[in-house]
Amino acid sequence: MRARSSGALGIGQDTSTAAGEARDLAGRKPLRIAMIGHAFMGRAHSQAWRSVSAFFDVPPVELGVLVGRDVARTGAAAQQLGWAESASDWRPVVEREDIDIVDICTPGASHAEIATAALEAGKHVLVEKPLANTVEDAERLTRLASTRPGQAAIVNFNYRRVPALALARTMVEEGRLGPIRQIRAAYLQDWLSDPEAPMTWRLRKEEAGSGVLGDLGSHVTDLIRHLTGETITSVAGGLQTFVPERPSGSGREKVTVDDAAWATLGLSGGGVARFDVSRVALGRKNGMSLELYGEQGALRFDLENLNELWFYDADDAEGLHGFRRILVTESSHPYAGSWWPTGHILGWEHTFTHQFAEFLTAIEEGVPADPSFADGLAVQRVLGAVEQSAAEGGRTLPLDD
Amino acid sequence: MRARSSGALGIGQDTSTAAGEARDLAGRKPLRIAMIGHAFMGRAHSQAWRSVSAFFDVPPVELGVLVGRDVARTGAAAQQLGWAESASDWRPVVEREDIDIVDICTPGASHAEIATAALEAGKHVLVEKPLANTVEDAERLTRLASTRPGQAAIVNFNYRRVPALALARTMVEEGRLGPIRQIRAAYLQDWLSDPEAPMTWRLRKEEAGSGVLGDLGSHVTDLIRHLTGETITSVAGGLQTFVPERPSGSGREKVTVDDAAWATLGLSGGGVARFDVSRVALGRKNGMSLELYGEQGALRFDLENLNELWFYDADDAEGLHGFRRILVTESSHPYAGSWWPTGHILGWEHTFTHQFAEFLTAIEEGVPADPSFADGLAVQRVLGAVEQSAAEGGRTLPLDD
Amino acid sequence: MRARSSGALGIGQDTSTAAGEARDLAGRKPLRIAMIGHAFMGRAHSQAWRSVSAFFDVPPVELGVLVGRDVARTGAAAQQLGWAESASDWRPVVEREDIDIVDICTPGASHAEIATAALEAGKHVLVEKPLANTVEDAERLTRLASTRPGQAAIVNFNYRRVPALALARTMVEEGRLGPIRQIRAAYLQDWLSDPEAPMTWRLRKEEAGSGVLGDLGSHVTDLIRHLTGETITSVAGGLQTFVPERPSGSGREKVTVDDAAWATLGLSGGGVARFDVSRVALGRKNGMSLELYGEQGALRFDLENLNELWFYDADDAEGLHGFRRILVTESSHPYAGSWWPTGHILGWEHTFTHQFAEFLTAIEEGVPADPSFADGLAVQRVLGAVEQSAAEGGRTLPLDD
Amino acid sequence: MRARSSGALGIGQDTSTAAGEARDLAGRKPLRIAMIGHAFMGRAHSQAWRSVSAFFDVPPVELGVLVGRDVARTGAAAQQLGWAESASDWRPVVEREDIDIVDICTPGASHAEIATAALEAGKHVLVEKPLANTVEDAERLTRLASTRPGQAAIVNFNYRRVPALALARTMVEEGRLGPIRQIRAAYLQDWLSDPEAPMTWRLRKEEAGSGVLGDLGSHVTDLIRHLTGETITSVAGGLQTFVPERPSGSGREKVTVDDAAWATLGLSGGGVARFDVSRVALGRKNGMSLELYGEQGALRFDLENLNELWFYDADDAEGLHGFRRILVTESSHPYAGSWWPTGHILGWEHTFTHQFAEFLTAIEEGVPADPSFADGLAVQRVLGAVEQSAAEGGRTLPLDD
Repeated sequence: MRARSSGALGIGQDTSTAAGEARDLAGRKPLRIAMIGHAFMGRAHSQAWRSVSAFFDVPPVELGVLVGRDVARTGAAAQQLGWAESASDWRPVVEREDIDIVDICTPGASHAEIATAALEAGKHVLVEKPLANTVEDAERLTRLASTRPGQAAIVNFNYRRVPALALARTMVEEGRLGPIRQIRAAYLQDWLSDPEAPMTWRLRKEEAGSGVLGDLGSHVTDLIRHLTGETITSVAGGLQTFVPERPSGSGREKVTVDDAAWATLGLSGGGVARFDVSRVALGRKNGMSLELYGEQGALRFDLENLNELWFYDADDAEGLHGFRRILVTESSHPYAGSWWPTGHILGWEHTFTHQFAEFLTAIEEGVPADPSFADGLAVQRVLGAVEQSAAEGGRTLPLDD
Repeated sequence: MRARSSGALGIGQDTSTAAGEARDLAGRKPLRIAMIGHAFMGRAHSQAWRSVSAFFDVPPVELGVLVGRDVARTGAAAQQLGWAESASDWRPVVEREDIDIVDICTPGASHAEIATAALEAGKHVLVEKPLANTVEDAERLTRLASTRPGQAAIVNFNYRRVPALALARTMVEEGRLGPIRQIRAAYLQDWLSDPEAPMTWRLRKEEAGSGVLGDLGSHVTDLIRHLTGETITSVAGGLQTFVPERPSGSGREKVTVDDAAWATLGLSGGGVARFDVSRVALGRKNGMSLELYGEQGALRFDLENLNELWFYDADDAEGLHGFRRILVTESSHPYAGSWWPTGHILGWEHTFTHQFAEFLTAIEEGVPADPSFADGLAVQRVLGAVEQSAAEGGRTLPLDD
Repeated sequence: MRARSSGALGIGQDTSTAAGEARDLAGRKPLRIAMIGHAFMGRAHSQAWRSVSAFFDVPPVELGVLVGRDVARTGAAAQQLGWAESASDWRPVVEREDIDIVDICTPGASHAEIATAALEAGKHVLVEKPLANTVEDAERLTRLASTRPGQAAIVNFNYRRVPALALARTMVEEGRLGPIRQIRAAYLQDWLSDPEAPMTWRLRKEEAGSGVLGDLGSHVTDLIRHLTGETITSVAGGLQTFVPERPSGSGREKVTVDDAAWATLGLSGGGVARFDVSRVALGRKNGMSLELYGEQGALRFDLENLNELWFYDADDAEGLHGFRRILVTESSHPYAGSWWPTGHILGWEHTFTHQFAEFLTAIEEGVPADPSFADGLAVQRVLGAVEQSAAEGGRTLPLDD
Repeated sequence: MRARSSGALGIGQDTSTAAGEARDLAGRKPLRIAMIGHAFMGRAHSQAWRSVSAFFDVPPVELGVLVGRDVARTGAAAQQLGWAESASDWRPVVEREDIDIVDICTPGASHAEIATAALEAGKHVLVEKPLANTVEDAERLTRLASTRPGQAAIVNFNYRRVPALALARTMVEEGRLGPIRQIRAAYLQDWLSDPEAPMTWRLRKEEAGSGVLGDLGSHVTDLIRHLTGETITSVAGGLQTFVPERPSGSGREKVTVDDAAWATLGLSGGGVARFDVSRVALGRKNGMSLELYGEQGALRFDLENLNELWFYDADDAEGLHGFRRILVTESSHPYAGSWWPTGHILGWEHTFTHQFAEFLTAIEEGVPADPSFADGLAVQRVLGAVEQSAAEGGRTLPLDD
């Protein structure tokens, strides 16, 4: 990823930069985006689209059309978040000639339909995770994307773009950990810890598709695959719903998804990864933690302190071994050099900016982007196997993700 | 500070939000900004201006004119950072009728002149710290600002707006700490630790005015005053230059500012604050740490983990006392509720967004903004006393900041 | 547990305290100990026996006979460690009239035989974990002990006596955590991480009985039962040997025990506990970590910082929640008050002193001691079920521990 | 320091080790100790004397005579702590022929008199810090000790013997830090934070000599000198009493010593050390923290986690720098190898055992022991200069410690 820098800027004669069709200093035409959905994720995406070209050497972008069901709310959101237009029907929008990129932030149930239409309309597509709500839909999308190599198509597993985790990936690739034997992972939150927290659509299986396994387990699974560069060869797991019903209206309603889940994953390199995910782990706010133990080195990471990577190097001098806290804010670190001086930490939202920069670079260079739809499909196969294993008493199932 | 929320948005009939003079949904006219300077701080300011109205319920802003000495570079920066125009002479710009706010990011030596002109032109003014390079200039500016109550005028001590420190301020005000007895503070960096790091203008007194004392000591001093709500009544201190000369061109040049400094400050409430600042503290990247010990409670903070505030409450149950790590990302926490769900951490740059939101709110409401020029002046008086004490062998000097 | 204190001491007329049969100031006759085994654990036990009555108000003890196979080495050890006599045959020693307590530190294979003889000889018995190498032996011992209520009989799961974990137990009993939903536990070491670390008897199944599961998994399992006060109702698990053969003599020898193991345990209260144990987790030295998530509170603990207990209280004031670090060294904390002033930390060895003080107090008061042989048996049933589950592809097995 | 090990033990024919005059396996006669004083420090010393020869290859010791003013309490303490005899008058005891070592644990006011008598009686002497309550007394003692090179004479600055700090000392000596530029130190406690904590003799100047400066500042000062191997060349400092009077009997009494103190020390190598000590730093229990910043490396330490040393190495690979947590429990680490396997942490009390082992080794080898009386004198000169500087408004005073 190339960073912006004053030195890299060309000469800019014009003092006005306002006009719509203006190319950037490198002569690149802007890419115009349509974003479908504008809730929590839509706000994060907007911030990233708004920021990306100020910090990374990518084609310029224009926040074109924001699409949402409610006309008034979508219009208001568009103004607040900086989108030029708003619309309530995504179908005509994804087919508009002036749209280059379709960014899909809707709930998972609609991903397959929108992404299919966008790909068929020739657009580059970015889908929030999960890729789709069923393995079948994910397979169809992956096949479709594979027939259109000129269009970038990614699933937004944004945590790959935490600088510390990007560094971790590089370190694994360089062999600094040696063969990886054990991974301990968790993604723990507590927003459902209180049994009186009210029912929401997220806790109904027919709407949400899945509980914490799909929501948080998907991130962890993607990271296990991505950081190791390995595939999952076996799966055992379990699901639990600690709070079986919750206040809803004047009564109580049954919760039909899991609020905790766990799995043991066999890795193609011979190692074992285990994870816990939970929405009832009291005190843990956004506690995604990773521990990777290799033969030559080990890494630890916690999302609540996402600028830090802890590294243990077996090659350190005798008596001086220890996990060291690398503050991943150096100019030599992935993405970090594009932002601020050493030690000035980044936040959660920056992972989106980095992901979008990678996406735009892939578009510009005409190369495949990642996390690919195939990655998204692999994650869903793993999660599906966890559910199946849970239904079969935790039995270990073979998998070819 | 009011957060943006979907619920708070009015009805937006228009689907186009592009036009220059468009009011926001609350009917507010945009405020147009001219920013003088566009280096490191200019990039951070641009990002904050670009983001502020998407997350806070403030008047809309327009990134109007970016001013820099070099025509080409400034034009390029304007395009990259999203400014509508660029210019190379600040004088006519600060007098333009269509400019509402002047944001001064230049080196300290020019602050006084530009801020004076902007105030006299009737503009709201935001000055990067330090307010000015001399106490005399700071006094003049403070007097001038006091004659223009309708214009907001602040010095950008952005760390007041770290959510954890804003929470700390509130907790002190609520009396959760009781009388504050001791403060231990530090701001430690290491970018000058290597004696072969080359000479820069920042290490020449005639250009930089001051070394680490002014650069980092000013932040610490402002926070000591702000968090306690007290004034400084005595000062003792010292300065040191550990690397007296550095590579410069083909030879070596004398370093004429301090690379480490320290002080002991008497507080008006009877407590004592001590700080160390350094650019040669190997291993510390952006290590501003604060410890406040009161009679009823204590707080600890570290800028490298700026989303955390550690609180010790003497009122906890017997046997269950301990510093607790508050992850300051709850919707009830200052500023945090405007961003992401609990546990999704913010970065360094967000402090600017928060500061600018406060500034815009003060403008809208016609109330005084802070940190005021008087705050900036007080900080400089303290730092001036540190220098004087250092010159007099560390003797304690009385002060009425 | 009563602490020693100057105030609690009676009047001591005599200035000589040397004589063998001397009673203590409370008029108590000393209890004389025979210890079988004197390797690593024997040294730790000796230190605890030597220290216990100086810090706790328990009957005095005399380090009577040290028993080991090698005459010369045992004699040398006895002198170094402060035992009055040494012997090479345990049988006559455990039957000696002047011996009150038999402390069994030998490898697990001989526990059953020695403990049986000692119980039948009417002695109080303390057995290092595991209680025995087979569930059958453990059952026999447990039955035998149950017929002799006047003799104290315990298994030395010493980590129950870490002050922080004793406090944790109390907090759970008091209901500060509410119903416990999830436990994440691990006990990770790395002394077998290097594939060239040589073969030892500990890695031969016929000698060691078990690998890391029995060695470290037993501690974790006991703590899960003890801290919750619940039983284990289901077990699923796995075993792995990452380094299948190791240098031995001039060649390589097959490793026949596990070097990593894991389990998912159903708790009688409806919660789930999961643990990982490993001897190849590079960088982790003695990394036993526990996380307990309840409905009202949560706890975290790490054996490498064993004086700390981290507590999250859902009842803290809004906006001020967070895990707090309780430094468990207050006079009101379990065991801690018997030692040093607040903040002066204890080490690993103190857990033995605490355990022995509990044992001596139970003897003096004629009440059952714990961890009982039944506790030891329950742990072995759980570990046996883990092995069985592992052999059956990780299937979940019901258990009535 | 040589560790005990089974391999190092000779052949022990005898099975009885009880007799008084018995030599150890290396043929060494026991050294018999008289200890004057038996409060908090006396208990810690007893534990160390009782343990030292079990873990270190030093001459055997006998806990001979315990001396205290109150006959009954001293007798009781002797029995509890394992001393063979007790006595109420130290004078005849220190002259007894069968006493080899005099261990002085009394309050500082009596140190000079007892140590003088013990040295003149030809004994080896170990004095708790401070060496004496006045610089004059300390000078006299130092001169006397210098005339008796055959007698070991040390001041018990036990924190030199924390394994992590012993390792730190070695690392500095090896040049791993390069020239040391800055030291930040603190020793913070909170047992006087509550203004209603009652008056004690420790808060009366005529009895205690000094407040927290002498009590905790002496440790910090000794460590600054010891770890750097440098001397103090200038001193500036301050004292404060935050709670000026306290409940005493039915009324209130004036506190006549400091409850907080601070200093800035010039180091002979050109660096600067600053420290804060306090008994009112709410939440800090035994919070001695040290930060050493050198040109090539940096170290951090906290006494509440005394098994850890944090090391930053400028020579680490680009992008992989960070403070690493060395768990100082390896067999290669100072003292640690004599105790338990890797990762099994030591406590505060072990520092005494290590110190006494060093003392006994020096006696056996006939070499000077440290911390010497000269070290104790140097510390008192520094603390005296802090008091003088405080009295002169914080002025920097030159010093030749």
